[in-house]
Amino acid sequence: MMLVQRRILPWRRIRSARSFSSTPARALIRSIEDLPDRIKPSYVQRPPATLLSLQWPSPPRNILITKKKRTPGITESLVEYTTHLSTTYPSINIILPPESAAEVHEQLSFPVYTYKEPRPDSTPQHLSDKVDLVCTLGGDGTILRASSLFSHSATVPPVLSFAMGTIGFLGEWKFKEYKRAFREVYMSGASDAYAKLEVPEHLHSTTDPRTPASTSDPLDQPLSYNDIRGKAMGSNRTARILLRNRLRVGVFGPSGQRINSTHSDGDTYALNEVIVHRGSSPHLKIVDVYVGGRFLTEGVADGMIISSPTGSTAYSLSSGGSIVHPLVPSLLLTPICPRSLSFRPLVLPAETPITLRLGEKNRGREVEVSIDGKRISGGMGVGMEVRVVGEEVRTADGDWVGGVPSIVRGVNGLEEREEDHWVGGLNALLKFNYPFGDQDADGAGR
Amino acid sequence: MMLVQRRILPWRRIRSARSFSSTPARALIRSIEDLPDRIKPSYVQRPPATLLSLQWPSPPRNILITKKKRTPGITESLVEYTTHLSTTYPSINIILPPESAAEVHEQLSFPVYTYKEPRPDSTPQHLSDKVDLVCTLGGDGTILRASSLFSHSATVPPVLSFAMGTIGFLGEWKFKEYKRAFREVYMSGASDAYAKLEVPEHLHSTTDPRTPASTSDPLDQPLSYNDIRGKAMGSNRTARILLRNRLRVGVFGPSGQRINSTHSDGDTYALNEVIVHRGSSPHLKIVDVYVGGRFLTEGVADGMIISSPTGSTAYSLSSGGSIVHPLVPSLLLTPICPRSLSFRPLVLPAETPITLRLGEKNRGREVEVSIDGKRISGGMGVGMEVRVVGEEVRTADGDWVGGVPSIVRGVNGLEEREEDHWVGGLNALLKFNYPFGDQDADGAGR
Amino acid sequence: MMLVQRRILPWRRIRSARSFSSTPARALIRSIEDLPDRIKPSYVQRPPATLLSLQWPSPPRNILITKKKRTPGITESLVEYTTHLSTTYPSINIILPPESAAEVHEQLSFPVYTYKEPRPDSTPQHLSDKVDLVCTLGGDGTILRASSLFSHSATVPPVLSFAMGTIGFLGEWKFKEYKRAFREVYMSGASDAYAKLEVPEHLHSTTDPRTPASTSDPLDQPLSYNDIRGKAMGSNRTARILLRNRLRVGVFGPSGQRINSTHSDGDTYALNEVIVHRGSSPHLKIVDVYVGGRFLTEGVADGMIISSPTGSTAYSLSSGGSIVHPLVPSLLLTPICPRSLSFRPLVLPAETPITLRLGEKNRGREVEVSIDGKRISGGMGVGMEVRVVGEEVRTADGDWVGGVPSIVRGVNGLEEREEDHWVGGLNALLKFNYPFGDQDADGAGR
Amino acid sequence: MMLVQRRILPWRRIRSARSFSSTPARALIRSIEDLPDRIKPSYVQRPPATLLSLQWPSPPRNILITKKKRTPGITESLVEYTTHLSTTYPSINIILPPESAAEVHEQLSFPVYTYKEPRPDSTPQHLSDKVDLVCTLGGDGTILRASSLFSHSATVPPVLSFAMGTIGFLGEWKFKEYKRAFREVYMSGASDAYAKLEVPEHLHSTTDPRTPASTSDPLDQPLSYNDIRGKAMGSNRTARILLRNRLRVGVFGPSGQRINSTHSDGDTYALNEVIVHRGSSPHLKIVDVYVGGRFLTEGVADGMIISSPTGSTAYSLSSGGSIVHPLVPSLLLTPICPRSLSFRPLVLPAETPITLRLGEKNRGREVEVSIDGKRISGGMGVGMEVRVVGEEVRTADGDWVGGVPSIVRGVNGLEEREEDHWVGGLNALLKFNYPFGDQDADGAGR
Repeated sequence: MMLVQRRILPWRRIRSARSFSSTPARALIRSIEDLPDRIKPSYVQRPPATLLSLQWPSPPRNILITKKKRTPGITESLVEYTTHLSTTYPSINIILPPESAAEVHEQLSFPVYTYKEPRPDSTPQHLSDKVDLVCTLGGDGTILRASSLFSHSATVPPVLSFAMGTIGFLGEWKFKEYKRAFREVYMSGASDAYAKLEVPEHLHSTTDPRTPASTSDPLDQPLSYNDIRGKAMGSNRTARILLRNRLRVGVFGPSGQRINSTHSDGDTYALNEVIVHRGSSPHLKIVDVYVGGRFLTEGVADGMIISSPTGSTAYSLSSGGSIVHPLVPSLLLTPICPRSLSFRPLVLPAETPITLRLGEKNRGREVEVSIDGKRISGGMGVGMEVRVVGEEVRTADGDWVGGVPSIVRGVNGLEEREEDHWVGGLNALLKFNYPFGDQDADGAGR
Repeated sequence: MMLVQRRILPWRRIRSARSFSSTPARALIRSIEDLPDRIKPSYVQRPPATLLSLQWPSPPRNILITKKKRTPGITESLVEYTTHLSTTYPSINIILPPESAAEVHEQLSFPVYTYKEPRPDSTPQHLSDKVDLVCTLGGDGTILRASSLFSHSATVPPVLSFAMGTIGFLGEWKFKEYKRAFREVYMSGASDAYAKLEVPEHLHSTTDPRTPASTSDPLDQPLSYNDIRGKAMGSNRTARILLRNRLRVGVFGPSGQRINSTHSDGDTYALNEVIVHRGSSPHLKIVDVYVGGRFLTEGVADGMIISSPTGSTAYSLSSGGSIVHPLVPSLLLTPICPRSLSFRPLVLPAETPITLRLGEKNRGREVEVSIDGKRISGGMGVGMEVRVVGEEVRTADGDWVGGVPSIVRGVNGLEEREEDHWVGGLNALLKFNYPFGDQDADGAGR
Repeated sequence: MMLVQRRILPWRRIRSARSFSSTPARALIRSIEDLPDRIKPSYVQRPPATLLSLQWPSPPRNILITKKKRTPGITESLVEYTTHLSTTYPSINIILPPESAAEVHEQLSFPVYTYKEPRPDSTPQHLSDKVDLVCTLGGDGTILRASSLFSHSATVPPVLSFAMGTIGFLGEWKFKEYKRAFREVYMSGASDAYAKLEVPEHLHSTTDPRTPASTSDPLDQPLSYNDIRGKAMGSNRTARILLRNRLRVGVFGPSGQRINSTHSDGDTYALNEVIVHRGSSPHLKIVDVYVGGRFLTEGVADGMIISSPTGSTAYSLSSGGSIVHPLVPSLLLTPICPRSLSFRPLVLPAETPITLRLGEKNRGREVEVSIDGKRISGGMGVGMEVRVVGEEVRTADGDWVGGVPSIVRGVNGLEEREEDHWVGGLNALLKFNYPFGDQDADGAGR
Repeated sequence: MMLVQRRILPWRRIRSARSFSSTPARALIRSIEDLPDRIKPSYVQRPPATLLSLQWPSPPRNILITKKKRTPGITESLVEYTTHLSTTYPSINIILPPESAAEVHEQLSFPVYTYKEPRPDSTPQHLSDKVDLVCTLGGDGTILRASSLFSHSATVPPVLSFAMGTIGFLGEWKFKEYKRAFREVYMSGASDAYAKLEVPEHLHSTTDPRTPASTSDPLDQPLSYNDIRGKAMGSNRTARILLRNRLRVGVFGPSGQRINSTHSDGDTYALNEVIVHRGSSPHLKIVDVYVGGRFLTEGVADGMIISSPTGSTAYSLSSGGSIVHPLVPSLLLTPICPRSLSFRPLVLPAETPITLRLGEKNRGREVEVSIDGKRISGGMGVGMEVRVVGEEVRTADGDWVGGVPSIVRGVNGLEEREEDHWVGGLNALLKFNYPFGDQDADGAGR
């Protein structure tokens, strides 16, 4: 306990100390370093399905939950969700970002874990060592920011996303489905390890304030061996994963030294895109583009986007790029407001490296470089390069690694349809091919 | 009366003769040649308004009414509308296209006039000499076809359009507004000539079957001097006209002879566009484009569109053209699926002639030429030219002529807002700038 | 010999018979059925190279050569090329399309083989059983037509292409390189089987008219065991193959019956694209699009393109599609002149089936369906479907099959650069990102 | 002379005083205030020509010359040009921008005039009162910056432009044509006033160092009455003017106060465009667009452009706008990277006011506002508006005023062809419709 106390983050010390004396378990913010190490699931492909199945070696314990900012009611949802998890899955530890932890910990009857806010151009050191599962409450932007917390990690935990308003593009679940969604994820690929699950002793006492007084919902009952024993957990019951390929991005100085990382040899991973842009400079930028090490073209434009398929519906789309399905292994090169009339967007193989180099012809200030919306400090000057290649998502042994494992919303009792969420996003969100108002299919009136 | 009888169109003779014997006025289809000559209104501009005001020298008499095909309920609406006109405006003559006349004349208690269906590449000879006002029941396609009836005439009568379903792009009125709409048009710019109007004698008899039994709606009352006398008919009461510029199109053979007209020196007028297209030929067409008599470019494409601003929201838009407001005096040159990456659409001055020439490099069959959706028979072979220039809409004296005078829907008691219908069409019909589904203005999620 | 005589194609009988009597071996056109069966090579991938290496189990014997039509000088090149092959590689058999065979056989001193011109919607029956290697003299269109000869075959022979004018997009060789190119292909992956090669006896006689009098070019010397023995044929010496994925296309009637094939269960393979188009109908077509069996959208457009990555620089590009590198396993769905403003092109996974269905809302005539530029007779009526999926190019065992194995031009002594031809095509052919004329990088002047 | 001395700009005083003592006329930089007032020409339209004819009431005297920066050899050209003008047209006064004046005055044997560098958001006070004619040496950017010097003036002097490298888009002359070009402009519409021209007395002395020793080029001879007398200066000899309409731009605060002007009621005129852009903010901006006072749409985008037709080939084109001929009286509304798939560019009537309003939904920093590439200090915050309307170029009396009167390059002895320069710019500069590399018009190969 002293250990915990010692590790309370400095800026929370006074408040936490006060809380600690009255209610030992509640209102505490603990350090993520106290958590057990991360449990990494495996992903299994069962053709012809193109989605993967999630398989935990043992039940996940450390759950990071992020939420969208400035959204009415979302804090209440966070409290409701964490309380449910803590009550129903007693062995689970809740991790919140520092700001959220400070905001809600006094409303919770159990401790939460947090981490130090990282410096710019960095990511929280321990997150990828500790987090088993990420849950997001919000929209696509919330998923993108949660993914950025693992932008220096080659393996991202599975991400379970809840839309808090409109259903988004990335396959989110509705928030009201959270009990079923979490149980499906928690039990996914349940193995023998699950059989050892026991309801913690304190839960046997009905006076425990965390136990709901009486509920008929089985999803509110704490899990125990009895819940598992004898139940066939077939592939139909596993959570389905869309492995979203990321970009691996390196920024290099004129003499070839790496400059976008706090660690000397690490690339940054991007879920959506890396953008080079003139920013507030009025001058067009001149960017040399190399593909597979060979000079392709000199782009004169406001900027240039290298996007993943997932990012094809974000900035690249605004700049005239095609919509690329997330399962097409590819990189998109899309110019932003090019001067040439014939600079059409390109779709390139994911495994081909692309280099953007800021040549000597440029004048004026540096260009801005943004990775998933986060700007790199200092920007990019003459002679510097951004090098991008698609992340490898499969090892030579055929194991699936890398990517952002997105848990796709399933519909009970229906066969797997991996296109559902993507098609839905196209239509509902992007208003893709939105019909002409006049339903008159009259050629003359066109 | 014999005169009338003689002029009954041959194909209607038997049926008409039978009808004639029993009910002299009803079920008759008469020839348009029996009608008095057309009354041409003038158009007055009152700055800062950009719309024009309609001014009849004397009340309009000959009303052509066209309707959309294959639309449930539209025949009933046609009967209702013509009956109202005939009852309330006894001096009015109803002109219907031959097919409509045949379809409805037995449901009417008054004679209708019609014309011979023109041959292909031609237009009804007498329409432009007789029609004072055109009314359309349908959508934009119906307006386009009505306009085509005057495609060889330099002056088109004013067009009053009623949308029968969705409100269209071209400023149509709702059909339920037809009484107010027609009265506004009928009285527009009412002058002394209107003071001579008298309710015809037979209307004084309450037993006349055409008089509605009892109605409190003043718009159902026949107009007479009493309706006019002492009423100030200010500019607020005039119908507002959007003069839609047309294209003047000539098609010429390799030796310069005109080939798109039944009369030797006449151009064809197009409201929307002229299209040159490969049709069912698999080969790209090579079209030389001249602007102002000077060679501009060689277009290698599926086809080429020259569009009016009104047509900018039709085929040209599908081919990537900009949306051009109908009051911008311009021509649009828009390629259809060009092979070059840099063939961007052009907007050219309305008064600059554009020539499309099918050069010797072409092989395969002729290209198809369509003017407002009507194909020119024979198409266009090597050496032939399509020459287009914007119609002149103002004489040297400043009088407004030409164009398609479209009566824009007004809203009672509101000041003139000429942009209303256009802005409405953009949003409701084209789904212009249709909002992204997720109302999350979150930059990261974009 | 009688056998041969019998099999001479009927339309060549008289002329051939006459020729036969005077010069037994020359001017003969024989049937392809007389040829030995096809030798199928294997393709080996050596990472990190993305191109494959060609490996013949034994030297190729049956060479199909096609040429572009209506091109000055191309017949002379065909004669020169076939003469070189026949002289230098005595065991080789030359196959020409019927029209070419008739045109040139009298200029040749050796027999050529040909096949019957197939019926429409069909392909020559024996070609895929006999042809070891395809050579094309012409441009991209010539490659496309040669590929169409195998549009019902799951395995296409390797294709060696020579550009006869401008270097094209698809990695052609220059014609003047033909000796080196053919030898590289002929020897590719030379194995023990090559050691058995002997110069035929008649070549030992210097009086043989086919032996060039004297030449110092080793590429003109007939190959024999001496050419092979002791030479290491490493991977550097193998011909490099870009396996161009094709589309597998089925056309089905309203009741599900297949209609685009002469054989009951065969799909058609397309190298570039399948196009559904209104043709000469003036009406927009309404095409329901299904992806992965699920309804995606209703396309109202002139037509719809489903393209391979190779086809992304053809019609799809003209219609606004992105440029997709041929190694991105994908299908492109690109609308042609859609009515909706928001119908953006899509890039979908190659393994996801796409269905285009002509729904009941359509009116007017059938739509036209073209597969690699060849129209399907009868077109497509209401209720009919076009079903497309990317061809599988790798078996479960990891063997490479399918696709059009395109032999990419190599540069002597340089390391493998698979991007060269594609980048070259983008710049030289498409004028991709063609630079703005004024080299003034002045932001204000933009 | 004292007067001049007093007005020498402070920062030039010491150097100028020194110069003064030795060579009275040379190396002096005088204030523009010492110059006689501006002579305003009139512009005459002679149908069917669409270009105007320039007519000076008396010969122009005050010539402003600007040049491009950072261009090798351009300073030498400036010295050559000014020396020619000073020698051949002795009554002419040369005005240079302060930086140019400082750079070259010591190389000149005659005084130059200059003005104080204006504050940001301002323009030189006296320029529009003094300058008769503007000459630019450079490219389109140089013309744009010269035009910006008159961005607060309703009447811009005629602009004579010389391209120093590639011929640009805006109808520039080649520099080597400068003698003929200037004489054509100088004499344009020569009237009786010209007859009073006398060669100044000092030019009669052959010892004057400014007189070229001997030259046979009549364009090098000083003009005098003898040059004019008896010569018919018909319309063929007048300089032809393309009046480029500008935008009239006002920026207003949330409470309606004007904020983009040093004078309380003045709009700013833009030759190309006004741009609202997110600048270095990562967030999409939400801009409400009003047309003719009516709400049109909410634009969610990186930014928004309102462009003149002249500007249609600048930033608007990079953002996907159509190319609009400079004689189409219109405004272009072009979004920059909009989020909606259906935000197509619009072309609106020049006389319709457009308002861009930054609504309350925005967050983050202000947006940047640039007028012809010059950023407005402070940018634009929530509630602020940019209001734009096309400049009026014709008075009620039919006189041509306003716009940037661009002197279009003429070709001796040829009839007027106003399209020449524009068509030339399209092809040479923009590479409009640049031909596909393979000249194979083969449909299959497309």
